[in-house]
Amino acid sequence: MTAAGLPESQRIRHDIRAGRITGTSRGLARGFVQCNLAILPKSYAFDFLLYCQRNQRACPVLEVTDPGDPVPRKLAPGADLRTDCARYAIFRDGIRVEDRTDIAELWQDDFVCFLIGSGITIDGALERAGVPTHKDRWVLRTTLPTEPAGAFRGEMIVTMRWLTAQQAITATQVTARFPFNHGAPIHLGDPAAIGADLAAPLFGGPVPPTPAGIVPVFWACGVTPQSAAENARLPLFIAHAPAHSFITDLAADALMNS
Amino acid sequence: MTAAGLPESQRIRHDIRAGRITGTSRGLARGFVQCNLAILPKSYAFDFLLYCQRNQRACPVLEVTDPGDPVPRKLAPGADLRTDCARYAIFRDGIRVEDRTDIAELWQDDFVCFLIGSGITIDGALERAGVPTHKDRWVLRTTLPTEPAGAFRGEMIVTMRWLTAQQAITATQVTARFPFNHGAPIHLGDPAAIGADLAAPLFGGPVPPTPAGIVPVFWACGVTPQSAAENARLPLFIAHAPAHSFITDLAADALMNS
Repeated sequence: MTAAGLPESQRIRHDIRAGRITGTSRGLARGFVQCNLAILPKSYAFDFLLYCQRNQRACPVLEVTDPGDPVPRKLAPGADLRTDCARYAIFRDGIRVEDRTDIAELWQDDFVCFLIGSGITIDGALERAGVPTHKDRWVLRTTLPTEPAGAFRGEMIVTMRWLTAQQAITATQVTARFPFNHGAPIHLGDPAAIGADLAAPLFGGPVPPTPAGIVPVFWACGVTPQSAAENARLPLFIAHAPAHSFITDLAADALMNS
Repeated sequence: MTAAGLPESQRIRHDIRAGRITGTSRGLARGFVQCNLAILPKSYAFDFLLYCQRNQRACPVLEVTDPGDPVPRKLAPGADLRTDCARYAIFRDGIRVEDRTDIAELWQDDFVCFLIGSGITIDGALERAGVPTHKDRWVLRTTLPTEPAGAFRGEMIVTMRWLTAQQAITATQVTARFPFNHGAPIHLGDPAAIGADLAAPLFGGPVPPTPAGIVPVFWACGVTPQSAAENARLPLFIAHAPAHSFITDLAADALMNS
């Protein structure tokens, strides 16, 4: 079978592995689940899995690989997590020291890979329901504490979307149908009520004053576990680079039932 | 404050701890979440948590305590998991060797407690929607494999309810609202399609022939992780005794959003 005959998720992963795609995964393979990636040694895996369980709105775990196995056998059996993200962020002692396009040279036999639901996944469902997702969208720190586990701790990071009242109602219903992918909003209205840091967005550029008739709506964001792992200052921790998520073979709408 | 002034969940746990309630938790503290309990040494905790993550329809983890801590600080901060189930089942090398009414003498500093959603919790929601729950209900083994993790493995165990077609439609909608407590059915119709063992129910007595107009509907059951732990033949594993679940302070309807 030629590459052209493959499902789009596999075709795009092939292009990423071959270096033909190097940019963001946003907008690629619409309709397939995209995942945030966290890779860490087995000795930290229980605490990290427990952190995700205790904060599952922010950290919906979709698959955990066995130690040393780079293949996500449930979500993308033909993939290799060492090569199939377009860009990886390498953290040492909690500091992002470099980015790489593959991590084969860094791979360890005790590495456990966590695939965590990404907000990118539900953009398609929102758009089909008439809620635009390509603009007026930011990733923000808040002062909401997460529940710690071992060394993993920190504040919740959220995605804020500017919506009309009607869009907010629609978006709440649509996202509630994906309980294993952040689910319904965690807040709507006043950003100050959750300490959302409008002055320093992690993504999305400067936040203008809220226009009349617009409701800010907030979802728990998959950057939260990456931030917790930074706070834990592991000797070595590897993640997807922001907006360079791992593309699975799972249909986004199947997430409703998983 | 007298015991009579306490919420019903706390009052019933007091009665259980004092030995005044020794029977099933079914029907007690309606409206509060009931949990299945699994207690095992820290050395097995990662594999067990991973087993639950990989089979979350059967094993919805609602809380995991820190090693050595018998207090479920999220779901029932005033409780003690060593005394507040009416009956515990003690397994050695995978065999249920005895039942106890408290496990204080068996407690170890490395014990981790898992509270796992119980089907008992949603009975109230089903009944409010007009679906009877007190009869025509069985717990059955199936031939559906679960996804193993470490030594934990085995077939899925299900709850089968006999419902009319209209009740089946209503029950599917009601239970789908509780994705963190088994969620929607995993099957409906022919029991043979999932290898449901009608000849030897684990609970509910003999299964008569299916009456005309009745649809068998099947949900993943919280006995599944207990069965997986038996298969793992841990030196020591402690669970609630069947139908003697742990009663939390969490309102059942709050599970929709957790």
